[in-house]
Formats: sequence, C-alpha cells, structure tokens
Amino acid sequence: MTKKTFEPAVFQSFSEKSDPSNVAPRLASLRAAMQKAGIDAVLIPRADAHRGESVPASEARLAYITGFTGSAGLAVVGRDKAGLFVDSRYTLQAPAQTDTTLVTVHETGQGGVNDDIRLYVGKGGKLTYDPWLHTPGEVRDVTQKLAGHAEVVPHANLVDAIWTDRPHAPVSSIEFLGHNRAGKSAADKIADLQKTLAADAADAVVLTLPESICWLLNMRGRDVPNTPFVLGFAIVPAAGLPTLYLDKAKITPELTRALDGIASVAEATSLGDALAGLGGKAVLVDPQTAPIAVADTLGKAGAKIIEKRDPVLGPKSIKNEVELSGMREAHRQDGVALAKFLHWFDQEAPKGHLTEIGIVTALESFRREDETCVDASFDTISGAGPNGAIVHYRVTTKTDRTLKAGEIMLVDSGAQYLSGTTDITRTLFTGSATAEQKDRYTRVLKGMIAISMARFPKGTSGAQIDVLARQFLWQDGVTYNHGTGHGVGHFLGVHEGPVGISSRYHTPLEAGNVLSNEPGYYKTGEYGIRIENLIVVREAEAYPGYLDFETITLAPIDVRLIDRSLLTAAETDWLNAFHAKVWAEIGPRVTGEVKDWLKAATAAI
Amino acid sequence: MTKKTFEPAVFQSFSEKSDPSNVAPRLASLRAAMQKAGIDAVLIPRADAHRGESVPASEARLAYITGFTGSAGLAVVGRDKAGLFVDSRYTLQAPAQTDTTLVTVHETGQGGVNDDIRLYVGKGGKLTYDPWLHTPGEVRDVTQKLAGHAEVVPHANLVDAIWTDRPHAPVSSIEFLGHNRAGKSAADKIADLQKTLAADAADAVVLTLPESICWLLNMRGRDVPNTPFVLGFAIVPAAGLPTLYLDKAKITPELTRALDGIASVAEATSLGDALAGLGGKAVLVDPQTAPIAVADTLGKAGAKIIEKRDPVLGPKSIKNEVELSGMREAHRQDGVALAKFLHWFDQEAPKGHLTEIGIVTALESFRREDETCVDASFDTISGAGPNGAIVHYRVTTKTDRTLKAGEIMLVDSGAQYLSGTTDITRTLFTGSATAEQKDRYTRVLKGMIAISMARFPKGTSGAQIDVLARQFLWQDGVTYNHGTGHGVGHFLGVHEGPVGISSRYHTPLEAGNVLSNEPGYYKTGEYGIRIENLIVVREAEAYPGYLDFETITLAPIDVRLIDRSLLTAAETDWLNAFHAKVWAEIGPRVTGEVKDWLKAATAAI
Repeated sequence: MTKKTFEPAVFQSFSEKSDPSNVAPRLASLRAAMQKAGIDAVLIPRADAHRGESVPASEARLAYITGFTGSAGLAVVGRDKAGLFVDSRYTLQAPAQTDTTLVTVHETGQGGVNDDIRLYVGKGGKLTYDPWLHTPGEVRDVTQKLAGHAEVVPHANLVDAIWTDRPHAPVSSIEFLGHNRAGKSAADKIADLQKTLAADAADAVVLTLPESICWLLNMRGRDVPNTPFVLGFAIVPAAGLPTLYLDKAKITPELTRALDGIASVAEATSLGDALAGLGGKAVLVDPQTAPIAVADTLGKAGAKIIEKRDPVLGPKSIKNEVELSGMREAHRQDGVALAKFLHWFDQEAPKGHLTEIGIVTALESFRREDETCVDASFDTISGAGPNGAIVHYRVTTKTDRTLKAGEIMLVDSGAQYLSGTTDITRTLFTGSATAEQKDRYTRVLKGMIAISMARFPKGTSGAQIDVLARQFLWQDGVTYNHGTGHGVGHFLGVHEGPVGISSRYHTPLEAGNVLSNEPGYYKTGEYGIRIENLIVVREAEAYPGYLDFETITLAPIDVRLIDRSLLTAAETDWLNAFHAKVWAEIGPRVTGEVKDWLKAATAAI
Repeated sequence: MTKKTFEPAVFQSFSEKSDPSNVAPRLASLRAAMQKAGIDAVLIPRADAHRGESVPASEARLAYITGFTGSAGLAVVGRDKAGLFVDSRYTLQAPAQTDTTLVTVHETGQGGVNDDIRLYVGKGGKLTYDPWLHTPGEVRDVTQKLAGHAEVVPHANLVDAIWTDRPHAPVSSIEFLGHNRAGKSAADKIADLQKTLAADAADAVVLTLPESICWLLNMRGRDVPNTPFVLGFAIVPAAGLPTLYLDKAKITPELTRALDGIASVAEATSLGDALAGLGGKAVLVDPQTAPIAVADTLGKAGAKIIEKRDPVLGPKSIKNEVELSGMREAHRQDGVALAKFLHWFDQEAPKGHLTEIGIVTALESFRREDETCVDASFDTISGAGPNGAIVHYRVTTKTDRTLKAGEIMLVDSGAQYLSGTTDITRTLFTGSATAEQKDRYTRVLKGMIAISMARFPKGTSGAQIDVLARQFLWQDGVTYNHGTGHGVGHFLGVHEGPVGISSRYHTPLEAGNVLSNEPGYYKTGEYGIRIENLIVVREAEAYPGYLDFETITLAPIDVRLIDRSLLTAAETDWLNAFHAKVWAEIGPRVTGEVKDWLKAATAAI
C-alpha cells in the first residue's frame, strides 16, 4: 500500500516568513529611537549570543527589521539609508524578502560587511552594536572598515527597545540523557574539562555555546528548531561546581534537583556580575564564538583572558561507544524512513505530479512514523531539476516546482531521533538520464567512495583528504563549491566543529568523529547531484597507527544513474558491500512492497 | 663499450670533513675570548646571513668549532659546557663528528634549540648572538626559552675573532644570463618588483637571499657548492636603481659595466650605513629570512618595517617560457647521462662489486661528459640496501657499502647545467626483488603517477594534492615522512619556495612552477624506494580554469620492479606514454649499447 498524500509538515514550514511591508514602519520606529539616543547607525546581526544556526523568534532581530530570514547576514541601519550584507547564498533571497526601496542588499565574499558600510554612517558619526551579539573579531572588522571615518561603540539593543510584540525567550522542556544514551556522566565530563583548564593554567572557562553546555551536562531542550538546544551560558571553574546561567523561567525545582551535585543554576541576568567577579583570575574565552561583552566585562574586572577555542568542542566531537551506538540506531531508524520514502518516490515520480514541497512532506511523514523522531535536523533541501543546482535551496510556496518525469531530484535531509542525529543526501532518478548526468553522478559517487574507503595515518586532517572526493570531477575540469564534509553531533547540531573535510579543516581526525561525506556536482539552470552518507572515524583494523571510516548511513544509492564503465572493481565491491549492509540492517525492519523494493534496490551490480 | 672505473668525483667529496680533535683547542680559544668580553655563552649557528643550504668555507663556523658538517644545527658554547642542537636527520652524524666529551648533542623536533639550552648559560648569565646570522624568529625563540633565566644580546662574532686561519670570503666569477637564457631582462623584473612595492606602499625592499638577487639581476656565480649563487645583499627602492652590496673583491670594472643602468654596486661593508639611511621610509623585510640585524638597523634609524615574504620568491617560482625551455633542455642533457648510467648499472650491479661511492662517481662522470654540466645540484644520495632507508643519507668513506646482488639501490641526484637544474631519483634493480618490495615500489609509482596525471582548479595548493601521492601507501598502512615535492629553480637552487607538494605548502600552484614529484617508502634496516620526476605546472588544455602537470624528467623508470596487477589501465597508459617520450627525446642522443638498452627500458608494458 502506498500513501499518496501526506500530512502538512510540522517540522518544516514553507511559507514566506516575512512581509516587506513591515520594513518601513519598523525602520521609522528604530530611527526615532536612534535619534533620541544620539546614534547615527546601528548594527543588526542575524546571530544571537549563542551563535547557533537557528535562533529563537525572540532573537530574530534581523528578520524583524529587514524581513530577511536567511541563516546569516548583518544589517546597518543609518539615519536615512539602510544596508543588508549577505553572502552569495542569499543574493536572491534577501532582495525578495526585504523592502529594496529602503534597504540596499550587498553581497560579501566571506560574510560580515564590506567597505560599503561607510555608505550608512556619516563621517564622524557613531555606529553602535549590542556587545552580546558580536564576537571581538566582528567588532574589530567593522571598526577597521570605519577607521578614520566613524566610531564604533557598544550600546544597549535599540531593536529590543522598539520591538513591542517581541516573543518571549523560549522556555522548552529540558531532558537529561541517562548513561545509556550519553555514555559518560556529566561529572566525568566536567572533571576532564577541569583537567584541561588546569593544563592551560586557567582558573575558569566561560561557555557560551549551547552545544558545549548541553553536551557537558548531558542535557537537551527544544529552545530552537532543528537542534535540541537549551540556550544558556555556563562558567566552569578549574575546581568546584560549574554554574549554569538560564532564563529565569527555565529554573524549576525539577531542574535544580536534576543538576544537584553537578552544577549550580543561576539566572542569565546575573552572568554579568558573575563575570565581573572573576577579577584577578585567568579565564579561558573562545574569541571566535564568545560575545565581546564577555571579554570586555572580564577585562574591566581585571581578569586575565586566555584566548583559546572552546575546550568542550574537541572532546564532544569524539563520540564514545554509547553515543556511536545511538548514532547507528538513529541511522537504522532513518534507513527505514528512507526505504519507505524512496519506494514511494519511485512509484510516484514517473507520473510527473510530485512537487518539491510534497516530497519534503512525504519524507517528513515517513520519518514521523517513528515516535522517537522529534525534529528535522535542518530544513530539507528539495530541489527538482534546475532547483537542485542551487546548493542552499530551501523550497517555499513561492518557489515550489513540480518535478517533471525525466528530471533529476536532489533531496538533502536529516532528522533528530532521541538516539542521534542524521543527515543524508540522495539524488533521485525519475526514469531517464543523459550520458552527461550519468558521468557526473558516477564521478560524484567515485569521490564519495574514495572517502569511504580512505585509510590514513593518525594526525591527518580533513583538509588533507578532501581531494580524494574531488579528483574524479577535477579530471573532467569541474568541481563543487562546498566542503566535502562537516562534523555531526550526537542528538545535537547537524553541523559541528572542529573537524570536517575541506581545505579549511586542519584539526586532525580522531577515532569517534562523525562526519558527513557529500561530494556533489551542480549544473546551473539544469540539475544538481549530491550523494551523502555519514561516516565514523575509527581505528583501522590490522593497520596500527592508521584510521579509516565506518559508513553508518543505511539507505540505497540509486545504481540506475551509474555509468558502470567508470567504476573500478574496488569501487563496485564497496558499493555492493554497502548495499548488502543496508539490506541486512533495514530489510528486517520493513515489509511488503517496501521490502521488495529495498531488496531490488540493494541487489549487487 | 662500457666504462668500468671512473675519475674521482670533483663535485662531491666523500671524506670526513672534520676532525673531532680540533674541538678542544678551538673551544678553549673561544672561551678565552668569551671571558675577556664578559660573555657567558655564545650561539653558533650553521647558517650564514643568506640562509642558503650551502655556506662557503668562510662561513662554516659551526663546523670549525664543533666539527659537525650537517646542513642545519646550532651550538651553544657556555663557560664550561657546550651543546649542539640538531634535528633528527643528524642524530647519528653529529655525535660521530664532534668531540662528545666536550659537546653534548641534543635532538630537536623542528630545528632550533629546545629548553636544554638552559644547561649552557647560568642563571643571570649573558648569551650573545651575531645579529647577521639569525632571523628575528630565531632570536625570539631563544629569548623565550631563556626568559627569567638569562639575557640574550647581540654581539660581534667571537668565532671570527679567534679563527686565525679563516678562509677568505668566496670570490667566484660572475656571469650574466642573456635574454636567450633568462627570458626577461633584469630591468623588466625590477620594474615588476617596483610595482609590487608600490602596491604594498613600501619605499624599498631589502633582499638578503642570493636566489632572489641572482634571479632579479639575471646573474649567476660559484660562491657556494651546488647552487650558482653570487652571495650579496640588495636594496631595491620603489623607484630608481637597486644597489647591490658585494664583497669588495667582487667589484670589478667588468661587473660594474655589466650592471650599468640596471643596478649600482657598493661594498657589502656599507650595507649597515645604507640601512641606517632609510630612516622615515617604509621598508619591506622578510622576517622569515632576513637577519635580525636588518630590522634592528632599520628600526633604530626610524624606518617603518613592513614584514612580508621576500617579494621576488613568488615571481621567480613562475618560470617564463625561456626558462622552461632551458629546464627541458637540461633534462634532455640529464636524460642522456642517466641513460648511460642506468645502462652501466644494469651491467655492473649483478656482479656484486659496486659501491655507493663508485655509483656516485660513475653518475657524476657520465654527467660531466656534457661540458655545460657545471656542478651537482646537491650531494648525491646513494643508498645501497639498508642505507637506502636513511632518507637524508650521504655516503662517506666511512659508511660506504658494497651493493650486493639482489639488493635495492636508491640514487637521488641532480645537476646544474647552464640551461637549468635537475633533480631525479631512481630506485635501481639488481636482479631480484621480493613480492613486498614490488608491492611497495608499485604503490610509490602509483602515487607518483597520480600526481603526474592530476588536474586541479586554479587556486589549489600543493597541500591539497599531496594525498594523491600517499593514498596507495596509506591503504596499506604505510607512508613516507617527507614532502611529496619541492620547488626547483632555473639554474638556481634545487630547493626553492614558495610552492611545493606537502601539507605545509598552502600557496596556490601557478602555471610555470617547477616542482619535484617524489613519493617514497623506507623500511628501516632493509631498503628504501623513491621515484622522482620534475614536473611543470601548466594550463590544462581544453579545461578552462584548470591546471595540470607536464613531466620534464627523461629517464626510464624500472618496470621490472612493478607488480603489474596493481596498475590500472590509465596508470599503465601514463607509464607507456612517459617511456615513449623518453625514447623519442633521448634515443636520438645516445648510441650503441646504451641506445639498445634504452629502447628496451622504454618499451611499452
């Protein structure tokens, strides 16, 4: 039996979340506040103090003022002009969402702002920023770009002052992972962290990333979409209990009890005083992620700041055996949903009536059949034909496209199961493909297999092996303009550092890292191809001092798009072994037509 | 007709160049001078002011005092103890050359000194260094390691003061390359350099590297072995003529005439005054290579120092078509010598009487049959059997080993022809090889071919492609602990920056770069394998925006050591095409038995 229609998506929304007509009155209101405060221009970033990919509605200041809902961007509102700086992903979306008669969109190469910022603040003017929403590097960059032109100073947030119907900060339920899910107690993690603090001669560390705090305390919440975060801050001393700083509404007797003996809890509003109380201490702060307010407050108090990467990120990225078991189970669960979805797609797509949104909704619905699937790990990228060539495409009701028979369909999606986080891309076939498409698909696949089969000495970074995924495309004079892989959290962020596979990841890979492996190829205006599995770094059996990868994704790769003449025997062997594993793991979990389909889809070639 | 014996080498010497019995009296003499000057310890580096791989006899202070003749090292002579800091290449050689009752050898990971330097200068003591022999980074490193323990100050060189029979500074003949050899006039090169100075808002640059000065002025000399350097300094102003600072004895009317309209010439002793005269100017200085005396003198004079990599290194590494033609011709000349040598080796080696020194002497003799071969580009690495596994092995009369039939022989050598510089490694077969040796040889070869066949987008660095050479060895859990490739100069240094192929070379490759391609495998105590060709980066025909490599080395690769079952069809095709080119280019240049041998050695497999 095949489902034909699906419940509307709950995890993902396809509506335009913004209305350009709001921009004029909100800008006017903001400018009135600026005038009153004697301010010539205001910086409005997309980020909140925790630097997550998602921000809660209460922190969506950039969307509130400009209408732009992308995941990165920075507006500068001057007395009579406003600019919105976005990277190349958002060159089309930003002008579509904002009021371009009032806001000029600028594309920047690497994010941040460019020299055009001078257009929005007059010579000798004053630009202000909220020190809780910017890192020291961002403030330094803006200050340098305005050097000799205008001053850049911190100020209380003016958007918050005029945002009359601002939503409350999120207060979602908090759960704690037991030993059967976390594999290591919070006390043990804290003890390890305190050892690294001692080694760095630090008296304390200020943690501002929810991923670090949630992992350290074995705690999860639902404060933002896609990632089970509890938003908060923490100060971990070199000895004694950490203090967790949370919104007052989250501090319940149950929470305090659950953290008894592990951490003290205090109101987020008291963090400033706590930082000021660290005068004379050596305090570790991550300059890449901690708001400048943290370093400024510590500095004023006379603390010695040790600038270093958040010391939780490294240990967190090295999953223990219990976390890895959870990740493997999540991929079995996801594999069941994918088998149902891919079977459904194979039946429906040739009829030529599927839409991008319908595909997302179906996939979500299959995933939601598993009760422990609590969220999507990101908004599904569902690109039919030419939309598949837009690397960061997110379908909305305005862009939704019907998939024509014969077109290539790219679906990149993931879920948050209570057991772990998934991320998978499959390029779907609808009954015909050109020789060029098969050539490109096969080169992408060969690259993905090259990473899957790689073996490398300890100390090797993702930057070093990235080319293995690109070499076959490069031979044909083409490539893809994104990384080959990113770190993936355990029931946490689907993108996490400090390891990954691209030229910018120089941290050595370690056994226990979970990464994506996702080469692609994009032909603008025609089609996109990407194939993505998650892989776990492990000790290479029988090769002392070497590491290799275990693939944990369990969904078939469409062999009908392969040009078999391009595959080596070793690559074919890998593909057959992968499919045999998919069948062995997922076959027993599905029934009927889906089982029959899966058996055929995983047959050896 | 086959030569059986060869003239003694002229380019390379195999004698132990030092006598440990000299150490005691020279240390005593140095310590007397230290006492008189109120100095507690003295730094004695291997480097001279020009940071070359070879130093002239007049600059061999480290060898004079300690007896150690390695290419890197640093001694610290205290009042009653002395230490010699060397990297792992010299852990065996250094103790063998010095008097270990008086000098303690310390191994450091990355060169420089380690914390043991404190053993040689008492608490509150004074350590001095010659500011012309150390970069700012080296002085900073030593100062940090002695922080709170002893002071580190510049001082006139005390070794020079006691070195009674110090050789004169080298005064070799200087030649100028005509347009048919350089491809670009010195005037044009200087004009280009002056444009980059203007772009950096620099009023001048101080050049201290002979490779930069010689390339800029199309000038070559014989001041040091292996590299056709004229040792000197130069100051190039943003406008107007550069000034070349040379030893007084080199400044002849002919030289001044040759540089007329291109550069002024001044005595090296006046460089300090010239630097002091740059007060108020912005002066570009390379902190990685320029002696600290340069920055100190400029700083005292009130110049603004712009720290940046020597701006000649980049342009120099991008060879023009004339330079590339010269490099190709040098490889034809070298290919003739190699064909003669390899043919000779094939006849003689199975008899079991060849020695490592005999092999070097023969190869040098074949090269010297070409009158335009003016030097070896480095001392040949001639490693028989287990000696081949010592990566930086240099044979001496003490270590010379007879090559037994059946052993693997590694020969890494190169020459300076008037047309260009060569560097080639071949692993030679003597009639039997184990399955393991064939497996390793074939994996090394596959890696070398992978680099040879690589195609990659512009902007790609050597760090990104390095893994292509290692992947096949990594699959078997082994690797090699050296880079895959280094830059090679045009009738200049056989090792040059800023590009190369290893994880530390992040400068993008550009068309015109010449690199070595030399993966290897070393089994300690048994054998070493390395296969090295030189390659030129070029625009990839028919792939816009992409680069690939042209192989310019023209000597057969021994196919008898290949396990053919490990080669793909594409790899076999590459090898056959390479050998066809060797035959086409070298076949017409050799005769008789050598020609017959070459035809067989280059036959398709």
